[in-house]
Amino acid sequence: MPSKIRIALDAMGGDAGAAVVVPGAAISLGRHRDAEFLLIGDRARIEPELDRHHQLKAASKIIHTDVAVSGSDKPSQALRRGRRTSSMWMAIDAVKQGEADVAVSAGNTGALMAMSRFHLRTLPGVDRPAISGIWPTKRGETIVLDLGATIGGDAHHLVSLAVMGAAMASVLFDKKRPTVGLLNIGVEEIKGHEEIRDAGEILRARNLPELDYIGFVEGDGIGKGHADVIVTEGYSGNIALKAAEGTARQMAELLREGMQRTWMTKLGYLFARDAFQALRNKMDPNKSNGGVFLGLNGLVVKSHGGISAEGFASAIDVGYEMVKFDLLNKINQMLNREGGALNSVQAAQEAVS
Amino acid sequence: MPSKIRIALDAMGGDAGAAVVVPGAAISLGRHRDAEFLLIGDRARIEPELDRHHQLKAASKIIHTDVAVSGSDKPSQALRRGRRTSSMWMAIDAVKQGEADVAVSAGNTGALMAMSRFHLRTLPGVDRPAISGIWPTKRGETIVLDLGATIGGDAHHLVSLAVMGAAMASVLFDKKRPTVGLLNIGVEEIKGHEEIRDAGEILRARNLPELDYIGFVEGDGIGKGHADVIVTEGYSGNIALKAAEGTARQMAELLREGMQRTWMTKLGYLFARDAFQALRNKMDPNKSNGGVFLGLNGLVVKSHGGISAEGFASAIDVGYEMVKFDLLNKINQMLNREGGALNSVQAAQEAVS
Repeated sequence: MPSKIRIALDAMGGDAGAAVVVPGAAISLGRHRDAEFLLIGDRARIEPELDRHHQLKAASKIIHTDVAVSGSDKPSQALRRGRRTSSMWMAIDAVKQGEADVAVSAGNTGALMAMSRFHLRTLPGVDRPAISGIWPTKRGETIVLDLGATIGGDAHHLVSLAVMGAAMASVLFDKKRPTVGLLNIGVEEIKGHEEIRDAGEILRARNLPELDYIGFVEGDGIGKGHADVIVTEGYSGNIALKAAEGTARQMAELLREGMQRTWMTKLGYLFARDAFQALRNKMDPNKSNGGVFLGLNGLVVKSHGGISAEGFASAIDVGYEMVKFDLLNKINQMLNREGGALNSVQAAQEAVS
Repeated sequence: MPSKIRIALDAMGGDAGAAVVVPGAAISLGRHRDAEFLLIGDRARIEPELDRHHQLKAASKIIHTDVAVSGSDKPSQALRRGRRTSSMWMAIDAVKQGEADVAVSAGNTGALMAMSRFHLRTLPGVDRPAISGIWPTKRGETIVLDLGATIGGDAHHLVSLAVMGAAMASVLFDKKRPTVGLLNIGVEEIKGHEEIRDAGEILRARNLPELDYIGFVEGDGIGKGHADVIVTEGYSGNIALKAAEGTARQMAELLREGMQRTWMTKLGYLFARDAFQALRNKMDPNKSNGGVFLGLNGLVVKSHGGISAEGFASAIDVGYEMVKFDLLNKINQMLNREGGALNSVQAAQEAVS
């Protein structure tokens, strides 16, 4: 019998806590029968939710704590106050202790990253971790990183993002040599920061067997699906993600309002419901929920805080797949192959500069 | 009789040149009867177009040149090859010589900025120019800058963007003290580059009479209309703009495809046409076309290259309004008031650092 995929859930994270986390787990379990869950949080809140989901109850264990990291805690505060005792920490700790294969939390991003980094430590060869997300595109899906873990960074950092993103794409999209682009702006001569140009030169010069570097990609190239992986530092990655999500939400709202305006448009909505459903299936932020932390000795997935149970289930699904397809070992292999892709990159960078 | 608004058009810029520029001018003239045009480009291409638009013909003068700046020219190449002779240069020169109040071009952004900067020079107190755009939001419109003129920049640069953006908002939105936000990412402690934090401190400390600084705004806050003006350096501004435009286009395409799928959805489209039209009116990139170059001794507006005549007309409209409402003098006044808002800002910055 194959072993179970063990998922630790921070049942106090996000705007709704257990009320979203538990039904989310039930939805994900329906799709992945070989999953089992550690539900970490206030037993008094988890149990009533769990009583409504019998299959989940049979596949879950509650670990009680009533300490929650708040959404407004600074990372350093969260580390000080919530270390060892908070549901967020205990979910990460379950990964650290080998009791879970992945931790999923909808809590405070900065706190989750700080705790994950502090407790799990970065992989050898990786200086700074990243948050990667899955972006719906015209041609399918694209992995974008970093979405805000690390602000700025040199060419070496960007190259390590490329390697980690390619590892994730190879397991997620089942591609041997996923295409990788560097996010940049269009105009030739003022083409972005020096570190982006340098990273491009290194990636081209190294011609790594694990990824196919295709050059610079502009902001609208993400949605066009120009590459399997798009790499940028955390500030612009976060801005791009939120600008795109904001636009999608804005258009969906406009459309919803427009459809309610007259009996004609309401009728139109009824007839064209399939088309709207298709749009929602593709562009719903719920569906692409789940930011994978990369570069750590353990798997952690961040869910949006203000998400539905369906959305939280998507984040669990992402965590499940990362375990199933052995992302961590894959990244480690890529980082260590041939004496370390990143070490050879570092040497190349020194040669370039 | 009030004087005319004189608009110089680069009739060789953009993907289609005169075939879009001339009908675009005709559309804009229909909305602004006091406009007149210098059409600069190949007479053999302009004249046949102009023959179809009699009112425009009466309000226009052709200045012939057959030298065009190509879309692939680097800014330095364009300056070397196209100086004095190209349609792009001659449009800017018309502004420089006082023969036009504003120049509009759909040509190569880098070349247009390089030529504008070289020929018009920056305003006193402004180190580096910016490209500003008008972004459709939930609450109306927001000015976003810089969209890609200048990569990076210190706190002083960001503050000068805030002042120039506020001047533009005050004329465009008719507000005495427009709200201004700095684009940043959400997490408290890793809240972005130091220069953004410093710029925030300066803007708060100075409490300028021309603008109401409201703090940091995240990527999705642009579309929510959190501020009249959103300030960021050119790399992330360009990425945000293109990510948002790309998403809007992607959703529109998905919707169009979805509506064509079955007879039910087609019928739905017919009934709900008003709702789609409202969505298009709001989110169509054509409608928000026209990036105003700020910080120069003269007005230049950049249109998208691959745009329709309607879209190019929007860019002309933006230029028209900037002249009509005397943007340039307004910016100069703001920069020079009380011994210069920016100089006092610079002093404040030294005090802070």
